[in-house]
Amino acid sequence: MSAPAPDTSTGFRTARIEALCDGIFAIVMTLLVLELHVPDIAANLVSTELGHRLFDLLPKFLSFGVSFVIAGVYWVGHHNQFFFIKRADRVLLWINILFLLCMAFLPFSTALLGTYPFQPIAIIFYGANLIVIGLVLDLHWRYGTRGPLMDAPLPSRVINTVHSRILMGPGIYLIAILLAYFIPILSLIIYVIVPILYILPGHIDLHFRAPRSQE
Amino acid sequence: MSAPAPDTSTGFRTARIEALCDGIFAIVMTLLVLELHVPDIAANLVSTELGHRLFDLLPKFLSFGVSFVIAGVYWVGHHNQFFFIKRADRVLLWINILFLLCMAFLPFSTALLGTYPFQPIAIIFYGANLIVIGLVLDLHWRYGTRGPLMDAPLPSRVINTVHSRILMGPGIYLIAILLAYFIPILSLIIYVIVPILYILPGHIDLHFRAPRSQE
Amino acid sequence: MSAPAPDTSTGFRTARIEALCDGIFAIVMTLLVLELHVPDIAANLVSTELGHRLFDLLPKFLSFGVSFVIAGVYWVGHHNQFFFIKRADRVLLWINILFLLCMAFLPFSTALLGTYPFQPIAIIFYGANLIVIGLVLDLHWRYGTRGPLMDAPLPSRVINTVHSRILMGPGIYLIAILLAYFIPILSLIIYVIVPILYILPGHIDLHFRAPRSQE
Amino acid sequence: MSAPAPDTSTGFRTARIEALCDGIFAIVMTLLVLELHVPDIAANLVSTELGHRLFDLLPKFLSFGVSFVIAGVYWVGHHNQFFFIKRADRVLLWINILFLLCMAFLPFSTALLGTYPFQPIAIIFYGANLIVIGLVLDLHWRYGTRGPLMDAPLPSRVINTVHSRILMGPGIYLIAILLAYFIPILSLIIYVIVPILYILPGHIDLHFRAPRSQE
Repeated sequence: MSAPAPDTSTGFRTARIEALCDGIFAIVMTLLVLELHVPDIAANLVSTELGHRLFDLLPKFLSFGVSFVIAGVYWVGHHNQFFFIKRADRVLLWINILFLLCMAFLPFSTALLGTYPFQPIAIIFYGANLIVIGLVLDLHWRYGTRGPLMDAPLPSRVINTVHSRILMGPGIYLIAILLAYFIPILSLIIYVIVPILYILPGHIDLHFRAPRSQE
Repeated sequence: MSAPAPDTSTGFRTARIEALCDGIFAIVMTLLVLELHVPDIAANLVSTELGHRLFDLLPKFLSFGVSFVIAGVYWVGHHNQFFFIKRADRVLLWINILFLLCMAFLPFSTALLGTYPFQPIAIIFYGANLIVIGLVLDLHWRYGTRGPLMDAPLPSRVINTVHSRILMGPGIYLIAILLAYFIPILSLIIYVIVPILYILPGHIDLHFRAPRSQE
Repeated sequence: MSAPAPDTSTGFRTARIEALCDGIFAIVMTLLVLELHVPDIAANLVSTELGHRLFDLLPKFLSFGVSFVIAGVYWVGHHNQFFFIKRADRVLLWINILFLLCMAFLPFSTALLGTYPFQPIAIIFYGANLIVIGLVLDLHWRYGTRGPLMDAPLPSRVINTVHSRILMGPGIYLIAILLAYFIPILSLIIYVIVPILYILPGHIDLHFRAPRSQE
Repeated sequence: MSAPAPDTSTGFRTARIEALCDGIFAIVMTLLVLELHVPDIAANLVSTELGHRLFDLLPKFLSFGVSFVIAGVYWVGHHNQFFFIKRADRVLLWINILFLLCMAFLPFSTALLGTYPFQPIAIIFYGANLIVIGLVLDLHWRYGTRGPLMDAPLPSRVINTVHSRILMGPGIYLIAILLAYFIPILSLIIYVIVPILYILPGHIDLHFRAPRSQE
C-alpha cells in the first residue's frame, strides 16, 4: 500500500501534538507584546513627552522582535521535523511537552532581557533558555528519527545535517553567555544575528524537496 | 490526476501556517479587550459614578472595535490568498512570520491610539503599523502567486485586482498619516471608514466563484 | 456523486472560520480567569486572613463560572449551526467576525459584573452584551440557512425550532435588564438559570440525529 | 464498510471539541507564566540585586513547572480518551466544557500556591482543584465508553485499567490535602511526584498498541 500508515497506532496522534504546539507558539509569540506598555503621561505633558517616551521603549521593541523571530525559527524547525516523524508515542509526546515548557518560558526571559539589557545575569538567563530549547529540539529529532515513528528510515547523512543545524544555535549561544561578563554588547549582537542564520536557506532544504520526485 | 498535489512537497505545509495564523489572529483580536479595564470606584460613589465612568471608556471601546474589525479584514485577506496558494516554501513561511510579527504589534498600537486619540504621534504610529501589515500582505501575494506554489497560473488580471485591493488600504492610511498634524479628527475618521470599504464586496469575489463552474 | 461539494467554492472555507472561532472562544473562556487575582496579604497576616479573603472572591468565582458556561452555550450553538451550513461567503464571514467581536467583549462585561454585582448599570451592561451575542447568532442562522450555503434545504420547522431556541436567551435576558433597577438579585438569578436551560437537551437534538438514518 | 462511521451523526464533532480543548490547554499552560514578573529594581541596585531576586522567584518557577507538567498529564489523558471515543453527544460535550472550566481554574490555583506555598489553605485549594479535574476526566471516560460513542465496545478490563489510572491522581492528592495542616512540605512533595508517576509508561500503553496488529 502506498498510503502512509495511520498515525494513531500508538494512541497518540501527531496532529493533536501539532495543534497544541501551534496554540502554545501562537500565545508565546503574542504574549511577548504584553510587555509593551503604553507610556503613562500626565495630560499636560503628552504632546511634548510622547515621542520621546516611545523612543525609550526601543530596547523592548527590539527584544520583542528578536524573540518573535527566534520563536518563529523554533516553530519552523519543529514543524519540519514532523515532515519526517509520522507517528508519536508516549516518549515523543513528553519530549514535546518539555519543549513547550521551555518555549513558554521565553516571554519571561525576553521581558528580563528587555528590562535589563546590559546585565550579565539577564543575558545569561536568556541565552540559557535558548540553549535548553535547542537541546530539547535536538532530543526530539534524535528520538523521532530512530525508526518506528517514521515511515521509512532516513539516510544518516540527512539526520546528521539536521542535528548540526539544530545544534548550531546552542553552540553560538554558549559563546554569547561566556562573553556576557566581558563584552555584553557582543552577546546581544549574537542574539540578533543567530535567527538570521536560520532564516537563510540551508542544505536541509534540498532534502525536503526530495520526496516530491517520488510522486 | 485531478487531485491537487500534496502541499508537503517542500517540507512546509500551508495547513500548519494557517493554524499558527489563526491562533495568532485569535489572540491578537482578544488581547485588544485586555486594554479595557473595569473602572475602580470607591464603594460610596459607585452608584453615581459608574455610568459616567463607563461612558469615558467610549474612545477605548471604539478603538477596540475598529482594530478588531481591521484585524478581521486582514484575516479575511490572508485567508483568501491561501485559496490560490497551495504550497509553501521557506520564503513564504518567513513572509508569514513577518506578517504575524506586524499583526502582533496591533494591540500595542491600538492601546496607544485609544489612550492618546488626538496625539499626532499616536495617529502616525497606528497608521504606520497598518501600512506595514498591508505591504507585507501584498508581498505575500506577490511571492505566492509567482507560480510554483500554485496549482495553476492565475490570469494576471486577477493577480492585479488583488494587488489593488490590498494596496488601497496602505494608500489611504498614508493620507491619514499626512493629515495627523493638521486635522487629526479626519485621520481618525479614515481609520473607521477603511475597514468598511473592505467589508463591502469587491470585484475579487467574482473570481472566487469561478472555480465552482469547473466542477 | 454523493460526496458533499467542496466548501471552498466561494474562497471562504468554514474550516478556517471554525478554527478562528475555536481560538477566540478558547481565549475568551480562559481570559475570564485573569480577573481572579491572588489576594495580596502582609506576611504576618496570611495565616489568619487568607481563607477569609478567598471567600470574598466568591462573587468573582461565580461570575467567572457563569460566564464560562454561557460562553460554552454559545460555542455549542455556533458549532451546531455549522452542522448544516457547509459553505461560507463574504457575508457569513463578516457575521462571524461580528459575532466574535461581541464574544470578545464578554470578559469585560463579566469583570464589570463581578466587581459591581448589585449595580443596575453593570447588570444591564452584562445583559445587553448577552442579548447582542444572541441576536448575531440568530442572524448567522437566518443568513446561513437561506439556501446556497447548505447542501440541502432544511424543513422550515427545523429552522424555526432553532430560531426559537436561540432567541429564548435574549428574550429572558431582556426581562433581567428590565428588573435591574427594581430587584437586581432576581436579574442575577436569571443569569445563572438561563445557561442551565440551554444545557438541558431540547427538541433540536432530535433533528441532529436525523441524518444518520440516511447513511 | 471498514471506514469508521462519520462522527457528525449527532451534530457534535469530536474534532471541534478537541480543537477547543487544545486551545484552552495551550492558553492555560502559557498563562501560568504570566505570574512570573520581572523583578522591579532601582537602577543603582540592579547589578547587586538581580541574581538574588531571580533566586527568590524559585518557588514560582517551580510551581509554574509543576502545573505545566500536570496540565500536560491531563492533556495526554484527555487526548488518549478520544482514541476510543469517536462520537460526541450533548452530554459528552458538556462534560468537556465542565472539564475545561476546571482546567481554566488551574492558573489561579497555581498562582495561589506559588504565592503562599506553605499555607494549608493554598495547598488544599490547589489539591482540590486537581481532584475535581481528575474526577471530571473519569466521568468523561465513564460516559464516553458506555457504548454508542465508540465504534466497538472495549473489554471491561481495559476500561477499568484506565479508570484506575485516572483515579490514582485524585486518590494521592486527597492524602496531600489531609497532610496540609500537619506536614505541608510533604503535600508539596506529593504534588511534584504525582505527575512523574503519570509520565512513566503504564499498562494502558499496551492497549493503545493493540489496534495496530489488526491493520
